[in-house]
Amino acid sequence: MEQLERYRVMVEDYLKTHLSQKPAYGSLIEAMNYSLLAGGKRLRPVLTLAVCEMCDGRAEQVLPFACGVEMVHTYSLIHDDLPCMDDDDLRRGKPTSHKVFGEAMAVLAGDALLTGAFESLSQAELPPEQVVQAVQCLASCAGCAGMVGGQVLDMDGEGHALSRQELETLQSLKTGALIQAAAELGCIGAGGSQAQRQAVAHYAQCLGRAFQIQDDILDVVSTSEALGKPVGSDVANDKSTFVGLLGLEECRALVQQLTQEAVEALAMFPNRECLVTIAQQMAQRTH
Amino acid sequence: MEQLERYRVMVEDYLKTHLSQKPAYGSLIEAMNYSLLAGGKRLRPVLTLAVCEMCDGRAEQVLPFACGVEMVHTYSLIHDDLPCMDDDDLRRGKPTSHKVFGEAMAVLAGDALLTGAFESLSQAELPPEQVVQAVQCLASCAGCAGMVGGQVLDMDGEGHALSRQELETLQSLKTGALIQAAAELGCIGAGGSQAQRQAVAHYAQCLGRAFQIQDDILDVVSTSEALGKPVGSDVANDKSTFVGLLGLEECRALVQQLTQEAVEALAMFPNRECLVTIAQQMAQRTH
Repeated sequence: MEQLERYRVMVEDYLKTHLSQKPAYGSLIEAMNYSLLAGGKRLRPVLTLAVCEMCDGRAEQVLPFACGVEMVHTYSLIHDDLPCMDDDDLRRGKPTSHKVFGEAMAVLAGDALLTGAFESLSQAELPPEQVVQAVQCLASCAGCAGMVGGQVLDMDGEGHALSRQELETLQSLKTGALIQAAAELGCIGAGGSQAQRQAVAHYAQCLGRAFQIQDDILDVVSTSEALGKPVGSDVANDKSTFVGLLGLEECRALVQQLTQEAVEALAMFPNRECLVTIAQQMAQRTH
Repeated sequence: MEQLERYRVMVEDYLKTHLSQKPAYGSLIEAMNYSLLAGGKRLRPVLTLAVCEMCDGRAEQVLPFACGVEMVHTYSLIHDDLPCMDDDDLRRGKPTSHKVFGEAMAVLAGDALLTGAFESLSQAELPPEQVVQAVQCLASCAGCAGMVGGQVLDMDGEGHALSRQELETLQSLKTGALIQAAAELGCIGAGGSQAQRQAVAHYAQCLGRAFQIQDDILDVVSTSEALGKPVGSDVANDKSTFVGLLGLEECRALVQQLTQEAVEALAMFPNRECLVTIAQQMAQRTH
């Protein structure tokens, strides 16, 4: 879809130059850019831009928000991959940050990306009320009651079986919260209403759940080449997954059902094509 | 000084309850509070409150700013102490975070504190323009061009001798930048003028330099008991220090000179007693 491709290009262009104004101490900026510019689907920042335009805002204006969300996502991947966490050697087909720059630099690159995310938000040329709302939303979704909380549940859950409810909670925090923040920031930046923000949040929750279940499916049925990371890692790490709990077929049906619910949450928006397409592509993705 | 003690109590009380509203996933909140409530001098948040009142603001109103700065400081200590960084076992007389909670949890507790810092800023009941300025200032001082940049220089500098200029740059980033942010946030929260903010920043830069040189002095002349951490660690870790470069006597003179300069930077403020006292106490501290 042409519109989504335009958003993706906007995000890539913005990210590419974002850190270039910063002084380079040692290899810090290089390490930050290594992970930030490693490709990836850019689901979250594209979501921010698409939601913004669906709520009648201009995508250009929320680029600093979109970029901030992607910086948070990137930092979380770097820290997740650390030897003391998941100890992963590959990410998006490339050696992980600590493999290239060493563990200490990977910790610091992550810290600097997380800090830089909030700097990016604060630089948006939008009414300050909206910027404050964005900071509050992103921090709340990414912090101890959101993404980091989900990480802790994930870590604590390794090696013993989780119930479906426990797994839902874990994933809604670990993956869902940041996807929700990405969508909400688009609405906030457009100056959207409270009702619009709630609808967008509902859409994002469904999308996040579908995304995670699809991830679990792909970890079983895809190839390492298509994913850019080892397959079967969930089984190897003794992690609870939706496929393990519900089986492949029920998972596939659930992805369809959640996609449907996501699309329906957008009923109030006349210009929802982009976000409908995102949800459908998500359900069909093979990597 | 009574006023400073009042600020310290305000900070402790605020920090104590700050995380109590958050859902506790695993031992995350416990780990965050373990480090956040481990005492310490509270130099930075007290600075925020004191500057705010010197600029005719109300200390209560900038507590969320002060608390945010202390959360950034605390996260940086947790990550600094990690095995892949300084590998320290003791901090403020207690086992370091990763010794108690494990390495993964220490990384995550640090991440959550850093994220929580910006959430705290966003919750201040102040005009949104001021909150946005505070986010921008703190993120800029704490990120790749500030504190984290200083960490990288520190790491890269280990094992070979730095020039005085290199050491000044390193320390002004690693320690000075956050102390400056603490002071500037007090001025921002009080709605201070640009001239006031510059004066306060100058004071904080001098204070930060004096603080670091005094740290180097204490690492040589103090006892492990008084410091709550091993002495002689700079020599043991082969780190460049001001004492190593300039000798004890010149360092002591420099601390006096910087304290004087800090005090003079405040000439425009009628109510500067508190900040003068902070600078003087800093120069005389033995731990």
